[in-house]
Amino acid sequence: MNNDLNESKIAEIVRNVLNDGPDYVPLHEPSFHGREWECVKDCLDSGWVSSAGNYVEILERKLEEYTGAAHAISVVNGTAALHLCLRLLGVGMGDEVLMPALTFVATANAVSYCGAIPHLVDSDRKTLGICPEKLADYLKEIAEMKRGACSNSQTGRPIKALLVMHTLGHPADLEPLLEICEKYELLLIEDAAEALGSLYQGKHAGTIGTVSSLSFNGNKIVTTGGGGAVLTNDDELAYRAKHLSTTAKRPHVWEFIHDEIGYNYRMPNLNAALGCAQMEQLDVFIDKKRKLAEKYKEAFRNVEGISFFAEPEYARSNYWLNALVLDHKHAHQRDTLLEILNRQGIGARPLWKLMNELEMYRSCPRMDLSVSEELVQAVINIPSSPDLVNIISNPGLVTTIKTPGLG
Amino acid sequence: MNNDLNESKIAEIVRNVLNDGPDYVPLHEPSFHGREWECVKDCLDSGWVSSAGNYVEILERKLEEYTGAAHAISVVNGTAALHLCLRLLGVGMGDEVLMPALTFVATANAVSYCGAIPHLVDSDRKTLGICPEKLADYLKEIAEMKRGACSNSQTGRPIKALLVMHTLGHPADLEPLLEICEKYELLLIEDAAEALGSLYQGKHAGTIGTVSSLSFNGNKIVTTGGGGAVLTNDDELAYRAKHLSTTAKRPHVWEFIHDEIGYNYRMPNLNAALGCAQMEQLDVFIDKKRKLAEKYKEAFRNVEGISFFAEPEYARSNYWLNALVLDHKHAHQRDTLLEILNRQGIGARPLWKLMNELEMYRSCPRMDLSVSEELVQAVINIPSSPDLVNIISNPGLVTTIKTPGLG
Repeated sequence: MNNDLNESKIAEIVRNVLNDGPDYVPLHEPSFHGREWECVKDCLDSGWVSSAGNYVEILERKLEEYTGAAHAISVVNGTAALHLCLRLLGVGMGDEVLMPALTFVATANAVSYCGAIPHLVDSDRKTLGICPEKLADYLKEIAEMKRGACSNSQTGRPIKALLVMHTLGHPADLEPLLEICEKYELLLIEDAAEALGSLYQGKHAGTIGTVSSLSFNGNKIVTTGGGGAVLTNDDELAYRAKHLSTTAKRPHVWEFIHDEIGYNYRMPNLNAALGCAQMEQLDVFIDKKRKLAEKYKEAFRNVEGISFFAEPEYARSNYWLNALVLDHKHAHQRDTLLEILNRQGIGARPLWKLMNELEMYRSCPRMDLSVSEELVQAVINIPSSPDLVNIISNPGLVTTIKTPGLG
Repeated sequence: MNNDLNESKIAEIVRNVLNDGPDYVPLHEPSFHGREWECVKDCLDSGWVSSAGNYVEILERKLEEYTGAAHAISVVNGTAALHLCLRLLGVGMGDEVLMPALTFVATANAVSYCGAIPHLVDSDRKTLGICPEKLADYLKEIAEMKRGACSNSQTGRPIKALLVMHTLGHPADLEPLLEICEKYELLLIEDAAEALGSLYQGKHAGTIGTVSSLSFNGNKIVTTGGGGAVLTNDDELAYRAKHLSTTAKRPHVWEFIHDEIGYNYRMPNLNAALGCAQMEQLDVFIDKKRKLAEKYKEAFRNVEGISFFAEPEYARSNYWLNALVLDHKHAHQRDTLLEILNRQGIGARPLWKLMNELEMYRSCPRMDLSVSEELVQAVINIPSSPDLVNIISNPGLVTTIKTPGLG
C-alpha cells in the first residue's frame, strides 16, 4: 500500500502543465478563433443551409487536399461514415467483421446496422490499435480459406473485412495488418474518427484502407457540430458513397428515381461551413496539441509508476486525447485517480468499456483480449484542447480558455 | 386534341399569382428574416455546437409547446426520426408495416432499416393520404388475427403498425384510420415530415399516433439545415427515443455503458439554434403559405381541366407544397406542363414515384393502388415558399425573394 501512487501529486503535475487554466478544464473543447462566424454567416445569407450548397463541396476538396485521399464524401457523423464504409464493401447479413474490442461503441454499432457480427480482436500496448502478431496467430487457428474467401471455422460465417481503429489519434500499425488482409482476402477499413491530421509512415491515416471514416463531432480535433466523412481512393466507391448518402436518388430534373435502399446521410451545408473554417486551422490545432503532449511527456518523464502515452515510432499523431498509462501494479488506483482529477477540475476519463462487456455484444466471437483488458484498467485521458497551449509563433491567435466544454 | 389544356396559359396563371417574382422561382426555399443570425452566433460563441447544448432543449420545448405533444426529441433528420419511431414500437426483422405507396422513399427506407417490409396501401383523392375505406376492405380480406396480433394471411408475416404520411402537409383522415388500428391491434405512426403546423380536427398532426416524426430539412416549412424530431405523448417512449438517439449510453460520470444497439441521431446544437429562430416565425410562415394557397385557389377557380388542391374539410393545412391536379383526361399532359413551367422559371415537379415502382420495393406486398397511380399522373407541385407572399399585417418583415433555393 505504501507503494501506491500519490493521486493528488499526479493531479498537481497535470494542473502544472495546464498553467493557470480555469477552475474546470474539460477533456476536449473546440477552438473557434478562425473564420467560423464568417463562413456560417455567409452560408445563412445564401439561404443554402441544407443538403445542397457550396460549403459541402469546399469541405470535401479541403479534406482531399489535406489527407491526400482521392475522394472525401461529407456525411452527418462518423457513425454514418462507418456504416457507409461497410455497406460500400458489401458487408451484409451474417458476415463477420474483425474489429478491436477496445473502441467506442459506434464501431460495433455500424457493423450491426449491416446485420453483420463484430468479431473482437485484441490490441497492442505500444499502439493502442489492433495487435498484428496476435491477430495473425489467431487467424491461423480459426480462419478457413474456401475459394479465395475467408470464413470463421468455428461459426461457419464469412469474415469479410478488418476494421482498424486509430485509438486516441494514434495510427494502428497498418503495414503488418495489410499483409494479414492480403493473406486472408480481407478488405481493410480504417475507423479514423479520432485521427484527422495523424500520419502513418508519412501517409495520412484513413488513406491506406480501401475505405475510411472520419468524425467531426464536437469533441474532435476539427468540428462541424455533428459530421463525418468517408475517404477512399476508389472512384467507383466514392460515387457510390455519395449516391448512398443521398437516398440513392438518380439525377433527374424532377423524377424521384431511387435505385437502392439509401440513406439521408449527407452533411448539411450549415455544418460544412463551420467545417471549412475549422479545416483552415487544422495545422495550428495539431501544432498546439503536439506541444501540449510534449509538455505532458516532459512532466511525467520521471514519475514512477505512471507514464505518458507517446505516439508509435512510425507515426506522427494528432494527439487527439492525451493519455496517462498506469503501471500494472497501480491499475487498481484508476478510479480513485479519475475521481480526484475530476474533483480538482481536471476533465479526465478512462477508455471505453470493451465491446464484449456491453450487453448486446456479449456473445460476439472474440479472441483472447488480455491486453485490451489491461489497457482499460491502465489508461486515463486528460485535458487535450488545442487552446490549452499558446503558440508563440501565432501571436494573433486568442488563447483564452472557454469554460463550456464538450463531453 | 383540341380539348387539351393550354400549358402556356397555365404557366401564365401561376406566374401572375407570383406577381413580379424573380426570373426563377424555386419550388420551396427557406425564409431567414428572424433571429437566425443571433441564435447561430450565440451558439458559436458559447462553444457548444455539438450534441450537448441549450438550443437542442429549447427547440424541443418549443416543438412541444407548438404541437401540444408531451415530448419532442430532436434528431439529425426526418429519416432518423422515423427509424426511431419504428424501433420504439418494436418493429423488427420480418414484420410488415402498412404504409402508403405514395410517399417519399425515406418512409419505406426507415421500415427497411428495421429489417421490416413495407406493405403498400392506396391513397385517397380528397386527402392524398391513406384511404381508410379501401384499407378497411383490404384488411378484411388479408388480415388474420391470432392471439390479439394481426398477421398477413398471404405471407404469414406479422403486421405491426400502420404508418400514415401527411402528404404535402395535408393531414390524412386519422379518425377512421385509428378505428382500423384498434380493430387490428396495429400501432399508429404518423410520418408528419411535411406537416409541421398542420391541424387535424384542431389537433396538431403528429400528436394522434403513438409516435410521429417531423422533418426540418432545407425544403421544409421550418429548417435546421438538416434535422427532424420524434413526437410522442408517452413518457417511456420519449425517454427511450432520447436514449436510442444518443448511442443508448447510460448516464455515468465517466464510464461508457451502452445497454442496447443505439444510434448517433441527436441533433447538433448548431442546427437546433437555427431551428429555434425558425420556430419563432412558424405562425407567420403558415399565414403566408395559406395566403399564397388562397391566391392559387382563386386563380384556378374557373380554369377547366385543372384544379388547385385544397385542404380536407377536417384540416387546417400548412400548405407545405401547393399542388395542381389535372383532370383525368389531361393527365397525359403532365410532363409537358412540368417542362413548360420549369422552362419559364417556375419551379415545378410531380409527386414521387410510387414505392412499388422502385427497384428495391418492387416485390413488396401491396393492395390495388389505382388511386395512387392516378394521383402521380395528375398532381404537379408549384412554388410554395412563404416569402412569395407579403403579409400587410407584418410590415416589418422583409419579403424579397432570394434566388438560391432548395431542391
